[in-house]
Amino acid sequence: MIKQYLLSPGPTMVPERVLLRMAHPMIHHRTPQFSALFAETKQMLEQVFQTDNDALMLTCSGTGAMEASITNLCSPGDTIIVVNGGKFGERWSKIAPTHGVGVVEITVEWGQPVAIADVQAALAANPEVKGVFVQASETSTTTEHPIRQIAALTAEMPSCVTVVDAITALGVIDMPMDDWGLDVVISGSQKAFMLPPGLAMIACSEKYWRLSASASCKGFYFDLATERKSQRKGKDTTAWTPAASLITGLNEVLKMMLEEGMEQVYARHLLLAEATRAGVSALGMKLISSAPSVSATGAFVPDGVDGKALFAFLRDTMGVTFAGGQGHLQGRVLRIAHLGYYDLFDVIIALSAIEMALDRFGAPVTLGAGVAAAQAVLVNRFPRV
Amino acid sequence: MIKQYLLSPGPTMVPERVLLRMAHPMIHHRTPQFSALFAETKQMLEQVFQTDNDALMLTCSGTGAMEASITNLCSPGDTIIVVNGGKFGERWSKIAPTHGVGVVEITVEWGQPVAIADVQAALAANPEVKGVFVQASETSTTTEHPIRQIAALTAEMPSCVTVVDAITALGVIDMPMDDWGLDVVISGSQKAFMLPPGLAMIACSEKYWRLSASASCKGFYFDLATERKSQRKGKDTTAWTPAASLITGLNEVLKMMLEEGMEQVYARHLLLAEATRAGVSALGMKLISSAPSVSATGAFVPDGVDGKALFAFLRDTMGVTFAGGQGHLQGRVLRIAHLGYYDLFDVIIALSAIEMALDRFGAPVTLGAGVAAAQAVLVNRFPRV
Repeated sequence: MIKQYLLSPGPTMVPERVLLRMAHPMIHHRTPQFSALFAETKQMLEQVFQTDNDALMLTCSGTGAMEASITNLCSPGDTIIVVNGGKFGERWSKIAPTHGVGVVEITVEWGQPVAIADVQAALAANPEVKGVFVQASETSTTTEHPIRQIAALTAEMPSCVTVVDAITALGVIDMPMDDWGLDVVISGSQKAFMLPPGLAMIACSEKYWRLSASASCKGFYFDLATERKSQRKGKDTTAWTPAASLITGLNEVLKMMLEEGMEQVYARHLLLAEATRAGVSALGMKLISSAPSVSATGAFVPDGVDGKALFAFLRDTMGVTFAGGQGHLQGRVLRIAHLGYYDLFDVIIALSAIEMALDRFGAPVTLGAGVAAAQAVLVNRFPRV
Repeated sequence: MIKQYLLSPGPTMVPERVLLRMAHPMIHHRTPQFSALFAETKQMLEQVFQTDNDALMLTCSGTGAMEASITNLCSPGDTIIVVNGGKFGERWSKIAPTHGVGVVEITVEWGQPVAIADVQAALAANPEVKGVFVQASETSTTTEHPIRQIAALTAEMPSCVTVVDAITALGVIDMPMDDWGLDVVISGSQKAFMLPPGLAMIACSEKYWRLSASASCKGFYFDLATERKSQRKGKDTTAWTPAASLITGLNEVLKMMLEEGMEQVYARHLLLAEATRAGVSALGMKLISSAPSVSATGAFVPDGVDGKALFAFLRDTMGVTFAGGQGHLQGRVLRIAHLGYYDLFDVIIALSAIEMALDRFGAPVTLGAGVAAAQAVLVNRFPRV
């Protein structure tokens, strides 16, 4: 018997309370009962998005909503600016051409946030672009981009918006959509929303909706205007058959988040991130990022250790599943999540497991050193007696 | 949000696989379907008891089976020897008089195992006693008694048996009932069997059944001969309405245990016990017991710390539920379980939590010291790469 721990940055663990709620008998999605549940869920979701606009639920993964954010803005021949500093930034650049949309790419060194001057220069050189597409948290490099400053740039342009993939950021960090002028915010169910995958959420500004009216790439399933019409007050259901059990689960998740209080949710994530960073640093593992994300900590494995084998050993022999490296970081890093249904002893488990695994790989490690450094941060969560 | 961890020596955590199995639709207990399940469960249970006799399932807590072990052996006016080295030893002495059965008590200092010479002397002084009643593991003091040697003494007496409360020992340590000549072995569902409370198990030797024939305290619900007749091959069900979902869960638990292999189950428990002992010792906490049990580790809280407040802080503020002290140990000790659905990161959580709680109580503690000592033991579970 080896107990299993899922400590990856999505899918994350699902709270027992949510699993139980989703196990209730199936509810039909064209009934007043579902509409009542849906309307309540949408209203709570908009609180987490911090928007007065509609937060729409799409039955797809986050990638589907990323595609929708392009197709509902653009027509063939249009151009967008993409911030590409990792695997998810790169994804924008892969989606756009399938719709005949051109890409101006700002290539960012992995682990670095995009420089605002580079965005500014790209906008100046390409004043006709429809939008800047960027990750709030680039999960592949555990790096946060300066989305607020980017939105401030496009705010001054009448036909250009800022589109934010916040799949591993919404519900993790405080990112008030309306206040910051983010035109599109996208999230996914299997991250801070603590659900199984299969549901994406997207909210759009009035400016985006105005520009969207003339977009011709929309297609059918991902036509956001059709969804908005259906999901608004009065109909209160999705245009197409939804992942109803996930929406039921989302209803429960949002109650949990709002009961905890969003300030406390953000504070918890930050504490866990700071403890994890302290822990891996105490083990001599260098962070990947110069602007580390609050959703996951990525760190290089010690020299001489085969990161791919270490990752597999942790998962298959020790029962602890992290994320490894993507792209050129494959085999060189571990990514330790702390978003969603995550609490302080999950950080302790993560660090203890890494220490013991490094020991088994013959790497120089002081058992307990990373744990102790994390404890010194985590202990502040509790009052002195 | 505070995640909850149940690290007490019963009730213990229930594996997800077992929770899901018990959530299946209710099965009627007077059907061929239930009888097939029951027969399979009983046969597996007898493997864990290591007996060719019948392992019977009783719908009651362990205390019910303890009472049955007295009432099915004795008649009013009979006498038994009780080893009283803690709250559970004391329980025998409380049950017997309610049936007019006399008690010769061997009082043992809490935290000490009974001295065989004392049992020998008591038997010599009271040759007419019907049995010696003893805990394999006295949970209140986390101490193991020498049950094998006691059974060797009564084996030579034609009308005296050894009755073992193995509620926190069966499935934790290797205690072959038939080989060691234990006449009665009792267990409960919420310990190594990883189930919710509500089911007790009991197996009796041929010698016990022979002596039982003339016992007049039996009563009705706890008449073991009636149960044996019903639970044996052919009927394959309980005499009275059973806790059917717990028996369904037991079926799943036993499959898990036998799949893991009992040798590995015992080895896992021992490793977790040794790691926990190393951890609390590194924190300067003295063990309660000179013969520490493999099911739970009891240790004194540091001088100057209010153990009752520490226990409550761990449970209510940190989400980690241990057991405190009973009787005169109340407020002075913590008991940390490692029986049942318990794996090595549970030990890490336990020690990390205690360290941080001690810190908050202003006790001198080096964060990570207990964890590191435990890791040095636990790491041996994994192969070097």
